[in-house]
Amino acid sequence: MVQRMLAKGRKVVGMDNFCNGSRKNIEQVLQDPRFEFVEIDLSDLSAYRIAAERFHIEDSISEVWHLAANSDIPAGISDANVDLRDTFMTTFNTLEVMKDLGIQHLAFASTSAVYGDHKNIRLHEDIGPLLPISNYGAMKLASEALISAAVEAWLEQAWIFRFPNVIGVPATHGALLDFVRKLQETPDNLNVLGNGTQQKGYLHVTELIDAMLFIREFAKDRLAYFNIGSDDDGVTVRFMAEQVVAAASPGATISFGEGNKGWVGDVPRFVYSIEKLRALGWQPALGSAVAVKLAVREIIEQENCR
Amino acid sequence: MVQRMLAKGRKVVGMDNFCNGSRKNIEQVLQDPRFEFVEIDLSDLSAYRIAAERFHIEDSISEVWHLAANSDIPAGISDANVDLRDTFMTTFNTLEVMKDLGIQHLAFASTSAVYGDHKNIRLHEDIGPLLPISNYGAMKLASEALISAAVEAWLEQAWIFRFPNVIGVPATHGALLDFVRKLQETPDNLNVLGNGTQQKGYLHVTELIDAMLFIREFAKDRLAYFNIGSDDDGVTVRFMAEQVVAAASPGATISFGEGNKGWVGDVPRFVYSIEKLRALGWQPALGSAVAVKLAVREIIEQENCR
Repeated sequence: MVQRMLAKGRKVVGMDNFCNGSRKNIEQVLQDPRFEFVEIDLSDLSAYRIAAERFHIEDSISEVWHLAANSDIPAGISDANVDLRDTFMTTFNTLEVMKDLGIQHLAFASTSAVYGDHKNIRLHEDIGPLLPISNYGAMKLASEALISAAVEAWLEQAWIFRFPNVIGVPATHGALLDFVRKLQETPDNLNVLGNGTQQKGYLHVTELIDAMLFIREFAKDRLAYFNIGSDDDGVTVRFMAEQVVAAASPGATISFGEGNKGWVGDVPRFVYSIEKLRALGWQPALGSAVAVKLAVREIIEQENCR
Repeated sequence: MVQRMLAKGRKVVGMDNFCNGSRKNIEQVLQDPRFEFVEIDLSDLSAYRIAAERFHIEDSISEVWHLAANSDIPAGISDANVDLRDTFMTTFNTLEVMKDLGIQHLAFASTSAVYGDHKNIRLHEDIGPLLPISNYGAMKLASEALISAAVEAWLEQAWIFRFPNVIGVPATHGALLDFVRKLQETPDNLNVLGNGTQQKGYLHVTELIDAMLFIREFAKDRLAYFNIGSDDDGVTVRFMAEQVVAAASPGATISFGEGNKGWVGDVPRFVYSIEKLRALGWQPALGSAVAVKLAVREIIEQENCR
């Protein structure tokens, strides 16, 4: 995202605590004099305020892209404090700092997990009820709600992106990375959580970035909220496991677990509507299956270079 | 509520910081040896945990009724920390304490404000999107979402009550109390915020308690969420002002402001569906107009006795 913004001629200030990512991922963009970076925990309001003020005084900040969150859903389920701090308080603090400094435009990474488990009903943006089944989904919904109230009271415009399952590199978590790492340890067998029938759509990260920038440019509602996702009904975990085996360790056997949930709080199957985004004028070029194949190659390369 | 629970033969422990209520309101129930009270701020997790543990060890706590929240919506809009602390963190901490102590049943006071402004669409429980326009609504939605995730992970059963506008005594805030107090200061004229056309349903607090106890007893879903409200399209602010004038200061003139919102974040008009609650077997006996007339009498008496 930073590369794409710099390519558009913007200046960018990045803030992250590297609790999931790493400095290595931004080594290249750090060479660009129009990019600055502060290692900071955004759940620490006073540190956040001080850092943002410094940049804002130098060179007025026109908008904030708040993409920081816990991305380890099971960790947030066993300890609610994880998503309170990393998923929710980072949003609360972002709004506090923006309000203080008079920054009026916010782009925000939300998630399909705000919808909870609607079984096979196609998830469009205005569906109800919203009953998340993970603390991650709950704290993203809480963040959306705060942003909505801020748009009513003082924020000029907000774009909310409800992410699907995203794959590609740099990969820090997720089924594909797990499978690749497991096969590096035990090349003959791959153990899969759940029975492999979980089916979800996957979007490649490059397309996710395209979609966010497109929505930011063209959506005109003061509170614009869009699903971003693949254009198909997705692929199964079994398909993903087979792709990783074929690319990383051909001939390995695959053992499946029981049940159709990888973990408590995992939504076993969902179908995502991207009609609203398509009506705005964007649709993904890659299907879920192609995105998975591409990501498998990239992740294997990433892991071989560690 | 405490009186009603004691009348059912339950033991009750109350916890509150009196930031909105007062000890005077519980003087009568404090006489009952089956009622104990701790003055505590529920947003302070360690104090909450210590107090709950003490009672739980003595006499196992079987369920929690979490009714504590900020009730001053404008205060929460000007400072987001108010609803973060009083509306949301009290819920977060309640779940943390319950999880620690193994308490498996939670009744929770939510609100119609989780729905945001759907104009004239009748608000049923499964409507979407949920885009609150106040921090109060946002932090109640956040609380519901956390409870939903807890039911998925460890909580056995939860009852969520989406409150309407509630009136009656003890009154600590709200339009009727404001009107009564204004007329005590200036008996000849009543100044009303907004143009008086705001229209909402009102429920008397005694009926709200009936409804909650009914839902608690009869709703069997693990996550049961119900609108509680009047059975009609409500009454206007103008009607309420006229009732207060007639009862408290007959002949006073009424001056209205501009616009149909009393304050930023106020939902100007909403119609509430209570079909789900009626299908379960409960409906209010009083209409909004009668509830208002009853509450006006009670509030005038309350204020005269201060």
